[in-house]
Amino acid sequence: MRQLVKKKGEPMYGIFTARGRDASRLEQLSDCVFALAITMSLLSTQAPRNFDELTLFISDVVPFTLSMVAVMWIWHGHYQFFMRYGLRDIRIIVLNTFMMLIVLFFIYPLKFLSTWLVSYFTLLAKALLISNEYFRELNQMGTQMIPWSDMPELMIIYDCGFLSIYIAFVLMYRHAIKNGDSLNLSEAEVHATKSIIAHYTGIVAIGLISLFIALLGFLIDWEFSGLFAGVIYALIGPVSYFIGRKYDKPPLNSTSDHA
Amino acid sequence: MRQLVKKKGEPMYGIFTARGRDASRLEQLSDCVFALAITMSLLSTQAPRNFDELTLFISDVVPFTLSMVAVMWIWHGHYQFFMRYGLRDIRIIVLNTFMMLIVLFFIYPLKFLSTWLVSYFTLLAKALLISNEYFRELNQMGTQMIPWSDMPELMIIYDCGFLSIYIAFVLMYRHAIKNGDSLNLSEAEVHATKSIIAHYTGIVAIGLISLFIALLGFLIDWEFSGLFAGVIYALIGPVSYFIGRKYDKPPLNSTSDHA
Amino acid sequence: MRQLVKKKGEPMYGIFTARGRDASRLEQLSDCVFALAITMSLLSTQAPRNFDELTLFISDVVPFTLSMVAVMWIWHGHYQFFMRYGLRDIRIIVLNTFMMLIVLFFIYPLKFLSTWLVSYFTLLAKALLISNEYFRELNQMGTQMIPWSDMPELMIIYDCGFLSIYIAFVLMYRHAIKNGDSLNLSEAEVHATKSIIAHYTGIVAIGLISLFIALLGFLIDWEFSGLFAGVIYALIGPVSYFIGRKYDKPPLNSTSDHA
Amino acid sequence: MRQLVKKKGEPMYGIFTARGRDASRLEQLSDCVFALAITMSLLSTQAPRNFDELTLFISDVVPFTLSMVAVMWIWHGHYQFFMRYGLRDIRIIVLNTFMMLIVLFFIYPLKFLSTWLVSYFTLLAKALLISNEYFRELNQMGTQMIPWSDMPELMIIYDCGFLSIYIAFVLMYRHAIKNGDSLNLSEAEVHATKSIIAHYTGIVAIGLISLFIALLGFLIDWEFSGLFAGVIYALIGPVSYFIGRKYDKPPLNSTSDHA
Repeated sequence: MRQLVKKKGEPMYGIFTARGRDASRLEQLSDCVFALAITMSLLSTQAPRNFDELTLFISDVVPFTLSMVAVMWIWHGHYQFFMRYGLRDIRIIVLNTFMMLIVLFFIYPLKFLSTWLVSYFTLLAKALLISNEYFRELNQMGTQMIPWSDMPELMIIYDCGFLSIYIAFVLMYRHAIKNGDSLNLSEAEVHATKSIIAHYTGIVAIGLISLFIALLGFLIDWEFSGLFAGVIYALIGPVSYFIGRKYDKPPLNSTSDHA
Repeated sequence: MRQLVKKKGEPMYGIFTARGRDASRLEQLSDCVFALAITMSLLSTQAPRNFDELTLFISDVVPFTLSMVAVMWIWHGHYQFFMRYGLRDIRIIVLNTFMMLIVLFFIYPLKFLSTWLVSYFTLLAKALLISNEYFRELNQMGTQMIPWSDMPELMIIYDCGFLSIYIAFVLMYRHAIKNGDSLNLSEAEVHATKSIIAHYTGIVAIGLISLFIALLGFLIDWEFSGLFAGVIYALIGPVSYFIGRKYDKPPLNSTSDHA
Repeated sequence: MRQLVKKKGEPMYGIFTARGRDASRLEQLSDCVFALAITMSLLSTQAPRNFDELTLFISDVVPFTLSMVAVMWIWHGHYQFFMRYGLRDIRIIVLNTFMMLIVLFFIYPLKFLSTWLVSYFTLLAKALLISNEYFRELNQMGTQMIPWSDMPELMIIYDCGFLSIYIAFVLMYRHAIKNGDSLNLSEAEVHATKSIIAHYTGIVAIGLISLFIALLGFLIDWEFSGLFAGVIYALIGPVSYFIGRKYDKPPLNSTSDHA
Repeated sequence: MRQLVKKKGEPMYGIFTARGRDASRLEQLSDCVFALAITMSLLSTQAPRNFDELTLFISDVVPFTLSMVAVMWIWHGHYQFFMRYGLRDIRIIVLNTFMMLIVLFFIYPLKFLSTWLVSYFTLLAKALLISNEYFRELNQMGTQMIPWSDMPELMIIYDCGFLSIYIAFVLMYRHAIKNGDSLNLSEAEVHATKSIIAHYTGIVAIGLISLFIALLGFLIDWEFSGLFAGVIYALIGPVSYFIGRKYDKPPLNSTSDHA
């Protein structure tokens, strides 16, 4: 039965053999930490006692969803890595600990960012669609939560978190490919692993550009650098596309490169 | 030994083969989230330091039990789905994330509702059985926790949560039946899956009716619509019965419909 | 290798076959709840910021240890049951949910009791060994945490929690013996199961006596009934001994009784 | 596939057979507790609401990392033990409960210590590199967080925690070696186990020396004993080296000693 399920019911591993099917304690610990991170991002809001508090709590749904999606995005990458290679040696334990540290540490900032984004765009929409009055409120919010002048500093923090996660992924996959022989990776798997490393490296590069812009903005007091540093992440789409095009040639033709 | 236990000790899977016997990380993560949701609904009350606080804490037993039962109800549905099909592809991960989001997000409102219900019916019983004096207290409670005029709004929130969970279940089971061939579902299993989908769809329909009533009440300021929107859920019983009768014909006779 | 470990490295299952070796999601969920219950009993104390708060936190070590031991005691019973029979049908899920409810609900009262006991006996020791002055403080503590007149009420709460746990265990083991055939229980296993049921029933009987005394004390305002209701639990030792003597005859001789 | 992974992809078990590959509920519970301990050490800081609180939260990154590394260090030792022997008898359950107790109980003191260390060395660096002014602040911090005169007492607390963990490890490994026959330990495994016990015993000895110095300092009011008691832990390095040299002879030559 097991064989059967592997081949048919779980097409997500693609060409990979599910080496890490039997989740070890490392994944168990990580899953507990992921679950706690998600719950903590909600717990940061108090339990409601009357209807007003309840509606206030409910209004948190969008920022909470955003930060939960971000955590689950990382979880999915984590899940895929461990499922694909089943590596649990000391290097992976260290990299995994580092990743857990970043996830736990950035859950509050992430919630802060998503709350800010939701408040900002809600007010902006109101200001544009309903009344100019809201622009004043928009201004006020800035001073309350975060003044524009602190934006570059804020982006530096997020860039560091983002880079940490993806650098950890790159290092983990590079470790996998180094152990390719002992893991008995097929040629197609080696090719796919290289493609994944290229993707993640591209994402890291974008994060570095964002960090560079934010650092520059911080040094020369250029307020809007925060905005640019954020918008630069939109490059992930096209960069992934180009890396994908380069690597998505059928591995059969490219065997000579990897053999 | 494994074979033996499957056949005899776990009659709950009925005609289903336990494809998801080996719980994956997806279920692990979900279980952590369920456990945290249950604990959070208790944690929302402070730790008692003296006997008065302790009795106050103990008086919370009924609302806590109600919300725990609600969460375990969802857990059981979740458990059955994953045990039956063992599906863990990307679509199921997304639907599962959505379900976890709703569970975490609705645990506080659920606690709020059950606290309100218990307080209300306790006072109502006192008013009817002991003294008319309690009717005044009953009135006061309304203003404290939630005024009657906000009831339709409250019901809209709960209807959305309820619908989200059951729509997620319907989508998950529909995904299972779409993958019926690759899962090697037997004819009886396909029939049972269809029956489950019909049941859940019926429940969703009732939720939609409740939502419609609550929305109507909200728009025309009809206070008691909240009550009606809540009472409508009593229809789940008869609707489940009729759907059950339609589907509980022996699958052997109905093979022609499903083959 | 698996066979080997079962036979030699885990002598704790005694004559039982480890049917529940592969922990299911039910045990996973329960373990998360147990871990949360233990952590909550510590979390009820605030994080220390200076040395005075740190020493205050450290002084909590004895009550925390006591409540953790109590929870681990229940965990061990839970672990043994699921390891022995591997039953996970709907009846066990319901009983397990009930047990989790009681564990979560009684963790704060348990911490309260152990804090009270430790404070009380520390002061009593001081009063007896150092100075009579402490008797006044002892009196004061009563009014602060719990007056003696509320003791019977307190014991009623604990008796209910204690009884709930052990009645759940009795019902779970009775369910196991009812499914003895489908579980392929050996004769020795049936005998051992009966012995366990007798033990737990004895413990339940003592809990009932304690509850009866506490209720009586509550009705006739007899302050010291709380003390008696607590001391009665010392009977668990001798009762277990007598039940053990009755059942610990070699099962080979007693086959006629159980066949 | 399983065989293959054991031999190649997980070189960390060295000469050990991975007897505890299938993590039991004991490890599951422990992992939840470890995850909670890590999260608690972060949770002790409040969720940030504006940019100033966010930067304050971020400044916590070093102490949090330090305490997380300490917990993961213990986790890794725990992981290795259970992976190597797969023992889960009642003695191991008790020792494990004891270890969990210490981990949970020392997470706050650990966070306190790392916060203190980071604040102290940051200020010291500032005082030495920037301005003498900072020495006054350094002095003030002492009175705020912990006066120097309380240092020996503080060290006694940490020594107890440290000793508890390593004594538990020594007892667990000694239990493993006692069950060497039933676990079918190979000669190399017996040798490695003895080497580990020697290592851990050395660490315990250093902890005892530290405790002795701190106790002495506490009795004769010698403020700087706290510093000495802390610095003594630097001995772990050389002691481990000498024990390692004694035991790292190839086990083939030393069979006569252990046979």
